[in-house]
Amino acid sequence: MNKSRRLCHLLLRFLAFGATLSGVIVMVTSHERSAFITLSSEVKYTNSSSLKYFVIANSVVTVYGFLVLFLPPRSLLWRLVVVLDLVLMMLLMSSFSAALAIAEVAKKGNSYAAWLPICDLVPKFCNQVQGALIAGFVAIIIYMILLLHSIHNAIDPLLLRKY
Amino acid sequence: MNKSRRLCHLLLRFLAFGATLSGVIVMVTSHERSAFITLSSEVKYTNSSSLKYFVIANSVVTVYGFLVLFLPPRSLLWRLVVVLDLVLMMLLMSSFSAALAIAEVAKKGNSYAAWLPICDLVPKFCNQVQGALIAGFVAIIIYMILLLHSIHNAIDPLLLRKY
Repeated sequence: MNKSRRLCHLLLRFLAFGATLSGVIVMVTSHERSAFITLSSEVKYTNSSSLKYFVIANSVVTVYGFLVLFLPPRSLLWRLVVVLDLVLMMLLMSSFSAALAIAEVAKKGNSYAAWLPICDLVPKFCNQVQGALIAGFVAIIIYMILLLHSIHNAIDPLLLRKY
Repeated sequence: MNKSRRLCHLLLRFLAFGATLSGVIVMVTSHERSAFITLSSEVKYTNSSSLKYFVIANSVVTVYGFLVLFLPPRSLLWRLVVVLDLVLMMLLMSSFSAALAIAEVAKKGNSYAAWLPICDLVPKFCNQVQGALIAGFVAIIIYMILLLHSIHNAIDPLLLRKY
């Protein structure tokens, strides 16, 4: 890796770290009191197992992203990082999709199952969940770029190099 | 790739194809009439966008899995298959998580949001969704093995080879 490519790589990793960290912070700080009797008195992310899963997954990836920033450039562990990137991106993707599915029901409800939308009752909470989801999505995009780049370097799937 | 490894690889791909196909079939055929006024007269997978996403994602991967079975062993396209495996596994993972999140609410409800569980009202539908989710999970495991194997061969992350 030459210097500018390494800088670009570190910058992307730093952005991914920032995205997962802000996803966790925004989600954890989201709570709103509701005066409506259909909802419990305080709405928090811990009320839904999918949102809890989102927080746990993003926390794990945040810690990992932080540690990788300090890996020496010539370390042989970079090979392991490719596999860890893959596994942790799966985790991010899975938690993002689960949280999005719940957020969609919270926003639109599901008339077939008689689940009412709750976002009109707790708009602040819903907006924060939405913000956390956007941060999570940005992190997924960045890890996807890093991963495709690693795979591209290792396997050259589009046959751009001459043999 | 020697012969037995190639056979094992093809077998895994065939199993993954079977798993995604059965996931689609089980999910699409799941519907149940309900006599309860809180639910619409017929409950189907199309009532939830997450379950629809599951069917679409699994259909796409089924078609892909079928086509890859007929790729000649020495084709250079195998390099591209690694990247497609990655992208389509993300799709599988994401749709599985979204469908699981909805299935969890359908089974247990969410008392905080006043979403009632519906599985007691439509047990047959719920069981079929559960079956489709299990098939989807098996497909994810198999694609994960295939992908980690490809990456392992290309990058050798655990440094098992001597240099």
